[in-house]
Amino acid sequence: MSGRAARADAEDALAPLAKRFLLPEGVIYLDGNSLGPLPAAVEPALADAVARQWGTGLIGSWNEHGWWEAPLRIGDAIGRLVGAAPGQTVAGDSTSVQLYTALGAATALRPDRPLLVTDPGHFPTDRYLAEAVARLRDGTEVHRVAPHDLDRFLAAHGTRVAAVSYSPVDFRTGELYDMAALTEVTHRAGAVVVWDLCHAAGAMPLHLDALDVDLAVGCGYKFLNGGPGAPAWLYAARRHHDVLDTPLTGWNGHADPFAMDPDYTPAPGVARARIGTPPVLSLLALEAALTVFEDVDLEQLRAKSLSLTEFFLDCAEELLTPLGVTPVTPREGARRGSHVALRHPHAHGLARALADRGVVVDRRPPDLLRFGVNALYTTHTELLTAAERLTTILRDSAYDPTPPPPGRVT
Amino acid sequence: MSGRAARADAEDALAPLAKRFLLPEGVIYLDGNSLGPLPAAVEPALADAVARQWGTGLIGSWNEHGWWEAPLRIGDAIGRLVGAAPGQTVAGDSTSVQLYTALGAATALRPDRPLLVTDPGHFPTDRYLAEAVARLRDGTEVHRVAPHDLDRFLAAHGTRVAAVSYSPVDFRTGELYDMAALTEVTHRAGAVVVWDLCHAAGAMPLHLDALDVDLAVGCGYKFLNGGPGAPAWLYAARRHHDVLDTPLTGWNGHADPFAMDPDYTPAPGVARARIGTPPVLSLLALEAALTVFEDVDLEQLRAKSLSLTEFFLDCAEELLTPLGVTPVTPREGARRGSHVALRHPHAHGLARALADRGVVVDRRPPDLLRFGVNALYTTHTELLTAAERLTTILRDSAYDPTPPPPGRVT
Repeated sequence: MSGRAARADAEDALAPLAKRFLLPEGVIYLDGNSLGPLPAAVEPALADAVARQWGTGLIGSWNEHGWWEAPLRIGDAIGRLVGAAPGQTVAGDSTSVQLYTALGAATALRPDRPLLVTDPGHFPTDRYLAEAVARLRDGTEVHRVAPHDLDRFLAAHGTRVAAVSYSPVDFRTGELYDMAALTEVTHRAGAVVVWDLCHAAGAMPLHLDALDVDLAVGCGYKFLNGGPGAPAWLYAARRHHDVLDTPLTGWNGHADPFAMDPDYTPAPGVARARIGTPPVLSLLALEAALTVFEDVDLEQLRAKSLSLTEFFLDCAEELLTPLGVTPVTPREGARRGSHVALRHPHAHGLARALADRGVVVDRRPPDLLRFGVNALYTTHTELLTAAERLTTILRDSAYDPTPPPPGRVT
Repeated sequence: MSGRAARADAEDALAPLAKRFLLPEGVIYLDGNSLGPLPAAVEPALADAVARQWGTGLIGSWNEHGWWEAPLRIGDAIGRLVGAAPGQTVAGDSTSVQLYTALGAATALRPDRPLLVTDPGHFPTDRYLAEAVARLRDGTEVHRVAPHDLDRFLAAHGTRVAAVSYSPVDFRTGELYDMAALTEVTHRAGAVVVWDLCHAAGAMPLHLDALDVDLAVGCGYKFLNGGPGAPAWLYAARRHHDVLDTPLTGWNGHADPFAMDPDYTPAPGVARARIGTPPVLSLLALEAALTVFEDVDLEQLRAKSLSLTEFFLDCAEELLTPLGVTPVTPREGARRGSHVALRHPHAHGLARALADRGVVVDRRPPDLLRFGVNALYTTHTELLTAAERLTTILRDSAYDPTPPPPGRVT
């Protein structure tokens, strides 16, 4: 395996991209799908934003340094990574708030249809916000339908479905669903689709415009590397802009915010999805982070990601399966996102033991270890080392089998 | 006037506090009520947050560096400035999102009452979000009632009023309303009160617990100096926590977020008002900014603020009234916030002319110039200089009377 890893890394045309990050020495970081590492461009950009723009420019920087336009400018920069033409993407707020906006707008596009479909395996906040949005309109019901069952569900109930809310990547297993097929079947039923791209944007090519996606959201802090809690983003297809009815009608989304009108008139375009004054420092950190994608071919990035995850699955099969670990991520590349999940009853203790040995991964309850790869900086050799260290930990039973305390970020 | 200014500044016990800010040379900054200037503590705190916490600590910093607890920890720090005991205040999101949460929770506390009262002079986003919240519940109506008319309105309609949403400081005129009296009359009617403290928190002592206020929100970027678009905050009185029904049920507000439960169970306490993952860099900048209030007596701060605004009103009366400028801010100290508004038909052009001469103020449509004072750093001498420069501009007609272009931050 080590020869194969060395060869793959030696032939890796993307290897120089790792220099765009300030990765700590001696750490194998496989949790970029939870929090991306620090891009080198962030520190100078943020220092400038603080000292020169805020400190010296003061209030004038809203105009002079483009703070006011930042949500749309950064939205467009994200749009380039997800196949969205300019003017359809806005950055700001948390993913949860963006989900509320997107799901609220989606159900409002189909006022006569009572059902909102979400994935039973969806990330919790997607499920919670679907329920929250159902409260916006009497009679709306949330149905949990797995992506593999959507076709069958829509055949029976499609005419009553307003919107389908899915993620292309299962946040636990790493399974990748077919966005094109799920979007198409949703549209055939006359419903609109809302994609949560937290685990996809920046990790693989996406084609929101080409697929006729209606709405999408994503976070800024995983594969976009925008920093802890970096602002999220929302995409709304241009064809919906004129009637886009968002629940959170904050003044930044007004057609003429500084006229201070008594009544709300939504801005033209995706700007109506703006809400309140955005956290500019966090936004500018995200903007600087996005520069790591300059001149990066996302197809090439995806190919390397698949090479990395396939290699890790091979390592797991050879080294870890005999020790009671079960890989749950699909072997078929087209069905795999950018992380690999391994099942073991003591996932929590194993993650801690790995961290003690310089390998940062995370776990998801009840029993999954997640190994996130990011082709911008992860190497095959790192993945082999991670698998070898886990092998040693398991062989030596060198981990604490106690379950985790509640309320810890894990 | 210059002797009076020099004497007041010489006797000012708070004068050394100005050193806690990095104010640019040669600028008289009277727009801290729109964007507070840069506190010296922010740069090192943010550099540490980026390089050490994010760059080196990576995902582990959610636990190791207290990111997860930041919204509650910073909420408590703000609580100390507004008379709130710990455990009732949470920082995060924008003021608009916090208003939606607070107004949604407020109306839910009075499910049988259909009216939501807001101020016709309220800041636009307060009005827009009141209308947005009215959509959450069939039959809810927003009524615009000026604070001076509240008593009369409640006498006629009080039993139908669920909540009253006001700001103690009129964002245009700087008039200060009687929070205690308005809270009391609201409670006498059986309704709950929601205070927007954007223009009050950090500028004067506030007493949320002592006044039995139900809910309050505020921004982080005016008198709290947390930076552009700094996270906002929400206060909910402890007595409401167990039944607090918030519209945005994001996973950070879950009782056990990392259990990844399929259903939403709100956290105990004010933590249930958390929504999504907060913008940590902006939050930590705000936390550092709040250290400027260490050892500051808010009564003393308020006394100096009143001395400053009174002095400026005297300057305006003597120098500017003869030139067609009309002060609109009350002369009575108890009725005055921490800015002074002057009316002139060419407010926009005058603000630009002042900026060209190193005096930063802002304007609010149609015809108000706002001079914000912050007793942490503003001096009487600066205010006299500002009044003198405006006098010169008016005498020489040295300003452009063209109305402003739309869409600029002004």
